[in-house]
Amino acid sequence: MRRESFETLYFDGKQLVMLDQRKLPNVSEYAYAANTADIYNAIKDMIVRGAPLIGCTAAYGVYFAAKESKNEEEFLRKCDYLISSRPTAVNLKWAVDRMKNVAIKSNLDLNEILKEAERIKKEDIEANLNLSKYGASLIKENSTVLTHCNAGALATAGWGTAVGVIKMAYNQGKVKKVYADETRPRLQGARLTSYELIDYGIPATLIPDSAAAVLIRDKKIDAIVVGADRIALNGDTANKIGTFALSVIAKAYSVPLYIAAPLSTIDFNIQSGDLIPIEERDRMEVLDPQGCGDLIAPKNIDVFNPSFDITPNENISAIITEKGIIYPPFIENIKKLKDRD
Amino acid sequence: MRRESFETLYFDGKQLVMLDQRKLPNVSEYAYAANTADIYNAIKDMIVRGAPLIGCTAAYGVYFAAKESKNEEEFLRKCDYLISSRPTAVNLKWAVDRMKNVAIKSNLDLNEILKEAERIKKEDIEANLNLSKYGASLIKENSTVLTHCNAGALATAGWGTAVGVIKMAYNQGKVKKVYADETRPRLQGARLTSYELIDYGIPATLIPDSAAAVLIRDKKIDAIVVGADRIALNGDTANKIGTFALSVIAKAYSVPLYIAAPLSTIDFNIQSGDLIPIEERDRMEVLDPQGCGDLIAPKNIDVFNPSFDITPNENISAIITEKGIIYPPFIENIKKLKDRD
Repeated sequence: MRRESFETLYFDGKQLVMLDQRKLPNVSEYAYAANTADIYNAIKDMIVRGAPLIGCTAAYGVYFAAKESKNEEEFLRKCDYLISSRPTAVNLKWAVDRMKNVAIKSNLDLNEILKEAERIKKEDIEANLNLSKYGASLIKENSTVLTHCNAGALATAGWGTAVGVIKMAYNQGKVKKVYADETRPRLQGARLTSYELIDYGIPATLIPDSAAAVLIRDKKIDAIVVGADRIALNGDTANKIGTFALSVIAKAYSVPLYIAAPLSTIDFNIQSGDLIPIEERDRMEVLDPQGCGDLIAPKNIDVFNPSFDITPNENISAIITEKGIIYPPFIENIKKLKDRD
Repeated sequence: MRRESFETLYFDGKQLVMLDQRKLPNVSEYAYAANTADIYNAIKDMIVRGAPLIGCTAAYGVYFAAKESKNEEEFLRKCDYLISSRPTAVNLKWAVDRMKNVAIKSNLDLNEILKEAERIKKEDIEANLNLSKYGASLIKENSTVLTHCNAGALATAGWGTAVGVIKMAYNQGKVKKVYADETRPRLQGARLTSYELIDYGIPATLIPDSAAAVLIRDKKIDAIVVGADRIALNGDTANKIGTFALSVIAKAYSVPLYIAAPLSTIDFNIQSGDLIPIEERDRMEVLDPQGCGDLIAPKNIDVFNPSFDITPNENISAIITEKGIIYPPFIENIKKLKDRD
């Protein structure tokens, strides 16, 4: 039977149990977090990754923070520590802030706090399904779709955002084939997206990131769907490094680029993309792709390894959320959405 | 003392001795070819690579072909076999055709044939130096230069084309820094270019291919210089996969893109880039980047692995050759160059 989702994380009453995504697709193993520091490290070391899943994980982190803290001051310090684990995905701060509100209101009632974390997880799955339905309506019959990095079930509490849209459209008989960018340096497209697509039975082809441009130029791609780590009020979107380049090529060759993300990915405090902090990660991610120690370059070479880039709003055809599809002009339509909520 | 070149290949009187580029930068080892089949395999398996070096290697292959052949018919069949080792780089056919002429004219005189192969090698180094002088004149003071794949000493009989231009401009005090794209799937930018740049003492930074776009957008790159595998009469250029994407971004953000290649890279029989055959290589190049066996994706995933792409002439600022710089309109100016020769 086809698996509709992956168990990316669950709370077993004592620990948060997380599918260790660093080892996929070859090894399917769980990792455990039993305190705030474990959660911080799980996010920082990318045992869990993907903006929505980072948010869910951090929510449980706030539960541990409350459990460990002698007073509100200590609790708030631990919450800031959790937020500092990765800088770009705003879902992290969004989840911690929401959890903090419940924690303070309930006077650090652990039961209430845990319930809120479970609610965030449940809502993430619902949001994924809803945005996938909206997104599937944008995919035309007989489409070949390109995606970058992994915005699938593995990037969320279940189902997925960009890959969720693709699965929904596939179930409607509209997706012929999917190209997955391998997504250097961490290879989430190869390790995670191609694994999810095969697992779901969708015809999938893996490509080096640099091969996407010729497919777009040659009209082999009908739509590009990707996730997001943070969306500014004007629609500028931070996503995995390489998304910006795709967006320039897509625009030049009139292929639509869709961002699929829950509303928790919109940073209502940031006017434009140039204010989004871009995480730079360790050089070894580039130098040792398979982690086998046989470096691909002289070990003293300088490396520039930005994890994300900013796709400007003018290169985005639409932003797909659980409340509906946002079209340009984004600055106006994101504001409307905010006012409506 | 700084090394001005690499000994990429030499004939020892019996065998062609080739630096095995698959093992760099960690291991510096030589491989040996003593017959036509060895040469064919050395080119196909990428013991040697880079359009000019493929040409030089094939030249010695023709010597072996003559040595092994009982008659002209067998010799010509072996020459065709050599040409079939890789389809895109036209320098291969150019070198074999030139060698064939000498062979036939001399009635398969091995001495004459070997002399011609040595001449092709010597001329390659001279052409590199000359085109590098022309190319350096295009680089402005205090420049940061981006290059893709390896068009260095290791791609030639010595000195290099694109990296040759960079070294010459660096010697003139005009190059502040070089960014090297790692160049998936075979990682020639990481394995070879960053190694060459460090070896020469040029400040170098390695990046994943997908990070180049943000550097270009953010005005951190003053010029892009790359090599070529085949140039059509209208200036359309086949080069390593990823060059086309770079060219679209570069054009969108007004950064000049220069092609550095000897005249032997121009295919005077082909009108435009869509007639250039694009080699597709083995899926394992994508699936096993470091060759350590721990695949980066499910082993049954489909892979699309084109080695090259076509950069259209309108995205190219100039083509740097040993006879001078060719500016647009290329169709006119390449014709002029041909007529002058």
